[in-house]
Amino acid sequence: MGGSAIIGAAELPVGEHWMKSLAELAADAVRAALRDAGLDRPDALFVGNMLSGELTAQQHLGALVADHAGLAGIEAVRVEAACASGAAALRIASAMVEAGVLDTAIVVGVEKMTDRSGPDVTAALASAADADFEVDQGLSFVALNALLMRRYMHEYGVSHAAFAPFVTNAHENALGNENAMLRFRVSAEAFGEAKMIADPVNLLDSAPICDGAAAVVVASRQRAEGRRGASRAVGIRACVSATDTVALHDRSDPLRLAAVARSAGRAFETAGIGRDDIDLLEAHDAFSIMTVLSLEASGFAPGGAGTHLGESGVIARGGSLPISTLGGLKARGHPVGATGVYQIVEAVRQLRGEAGPAQVANARLAMAQNIGGSAATVVTTILEAAD
Amino acid sequence: MGGSAIIGAAELPVGEHWMKSLAELAADAVRAALRDAGLDRPDALFVGNMLSGELTAQQHLGALVADHAGLAGIEAVRVEAACASGAAALRIASAMVEAGVLDTAIVVGVEKMTDRSGPDVTAALASAADADFEVDQGLSFVALNALLMRRYMHEYGVSHAAFAPFVTNAHENALGNENAMLRFRVSAEAFGEAKMIADPVNLLDSAPICDGAAAVVVASRQRAEGRRGASRAVGIRACVSATDTVALHDRSDPLRLAAVARSAGRAFETAGIGRDDIDLLEAHDAFSIMTVLSLEASGFAPGGAGTHLGESGVIARGGSLPISTLGGLKARGHPVGATGVYQIVEAVRQLRGEAGPAQVANARLAMAQNIGGSAATVVTTILEAAD
Repeated sequence: MGGSAIIGAAELPVGEHWMKSLAELAADAVRAALRDAGLDRPDALFVGNMLSGELTAQQHLGALVADHAGLAGIEAVRVEAACASGAAALRIASAMVEAGVLDTAIVVGVEKMTDRSGPDVTAALASAADADFEVDQGLSFVALNALLMRRYMHEYGVSHAAFAPFVTNAHENALGNENAMLRFRVSAEAFGEAKMIADPVNLLDSAPICDGAAAVVVASRQRAEGRRGASRAVGIRACVSATDTVALHDRSDPLRLAAVARSAGRAFETAGIGRDDIDLLEAHDAFSIMTVLSLEASGFAPGGAGTHLGESGVIARGGSLPISTLGGLKARGHPVGATGVYQIVEAVRQLRGEAGPAQVANARLAMAQNIGGSAATVVTTILEAAD
Repeated sequence: MGGSAIIGAAELPVGEHWMKSLAELAADAVRAALRDAGLDRPDALFVGNMLSGELTAQQHLGALVADHAGLAGIEAVRVEAACASGAAALRIASAMVEAGVLDTAIVVGVEKMTDRSGPDVTAALASAADADFEVDQGLSFVALNALLMRRYMHEYGVSHAAFAPFVTNAHENALGNENAMLRFRVSAEAFGEAKMIADPVNLLDSAPICDGAAAVVVASRQRAEGRRGASRAVGIRACVSATDTVALHDRSDPLRLAAVARSAGRAFETAGIGRDDIDLLEAHDAFSIMTVLSLEASGFAPGGAGTHLGESGVIARGGSLPISTLGGLKARGHPVGATGVYQIVEAVRQLRGEAGPAQVANARLAMAQNIGGSAATVVTTILEAAD
């Protein structure tokens, strides 16, 4: 176990939470994670959120969520890195705990998207791209991913059907997760016939718009080991953040996600492990092309060969690298600023052996990768089960 | 000198920057601060910003500013705590550097407000308050400060004219700051006759809407001392963040700013100094009532006696506690998410003896206090001149 550990974790069901405010959702997750940790009052609160200003006219979530969760007074702040906001908050919290600046911290990711219309949400999500040089030209995030997918299919001669296993796998895994939003099977045929959104990205290539909140409690290794029931703590072996240009057109090779390579490479180095040691991966499968590109840039497949991991069954629960084990962004849902924390909570569930029907057997090392924008911010976390 | 230090600082003139984008403003400040520090590439970038999503449809400022400043690839993230975003970013950066997680970091505060209409900006600023329980009732930030000021005048029998010295002092000090927005004298009479905005808050009780960016480079003490020209480094003795309820109506005594008391108290404790040791204070004078309440809660005056510090001349440049020494939020300007970093840059200018005509004689210890919302987030920083 590394210098810091997760001693509590909780997630709300992902879906349409019309009866609760943003602050209430976050406070619910905070209280549940603190209960799970057996802790009353952490030293600090870090909120991962992307869109509360744009969609609910609410900023200042650090103080607001602390207040609503009964923690008014503590140090509290919001961290934003587009769809990587959740793990970016964990990166800061875990570093400050590991270095001894804080003894304990809670990280909550929260997003409320379904109170607003689809066009409003699409416009808000586009603020993760370059407003002046991408969005003003008419690009949305679906369009950016469509450009990537089209280029990938052209460059490597890969068919759209080759992406199907990533989608069918995510939906299959969501069946075992009571908190997943889209708990239904999707066949390869249904995937092929889904409504086109931005050619070649269709409806089932994309993660859904939704609301959700998830939280984890971080403590020093010393404190984690001193707890009763310490077997449930999960060590943080690495949590590494890196960036790339925001605009896709500024990259020499848009199919090579440099920030993914940098973040994953340093995470493996920090953890002192190899890619083969990973027992499961919570991938950032917001779009199926992003799943494939991030698997390649993380070193799990050579460029152009990422879809083979799907076809061969490697990514399925019984395979050598199960991904999106509780549904992923695709089927659990993608409440954007919360997603990075959902990934961590679900990796913790696996490493504690508490993933129920979705349990990956003998899971000891998990990787979670949270991606913001067109992989302009990437945070890779490696977690380890307690001995 | 403490465990971390500021080795570079820069600020852009505050004003209406219609010819530059948000990212360009921030990148200009980043490059200038790095030049001042003699550093090419810091380990990480922290962006303090409040309103870019709401006012310019741009999130993801960590990666975006890194990219525009020629630093694509490094760890980068945005930190938001309403008007305390700038110092909240410094708090995280300095803690991570002091603890050895990072060797160097750059903190940039940036805000671009003048591209939009006044009502748009007023609505966006209100997102620092509780959207559901304050703003939906019709409260803006001017209105919240008007409630506080009216209550203060009633409770302590203080006249509106008693606030005049804080305003005249800020404008007097701005005359010596080439980067200040409102470089003109304001007489006590002019203050008394200014246009009423939300009774009793008038136009000259309030800081202006504006654009700006400021940046500081943080390094470990060891690195700061090893530099050539290290005499220009300024030590960070303390940087402490605390919160309170976001909604004013949830406080037992709205005239007692608990987060200010907590943040300042711990900052003095951490620095191991007393209030009398402070040579100058960059106060958060967004509204003159906030200046007075924060001086009281910081322990510089008893409750109800804050305005005496103005009347007696204590706060003037030759007084025992000069405040807003380069104009403060009131006259330098208040580009909200950037303000906390402007305060630090200006304290650094004073401690380096580079404040020109605004120089406070023999300044060795400076305090800066950055306040978000109705003092729901407060970050107090204590800086020390190099030996």
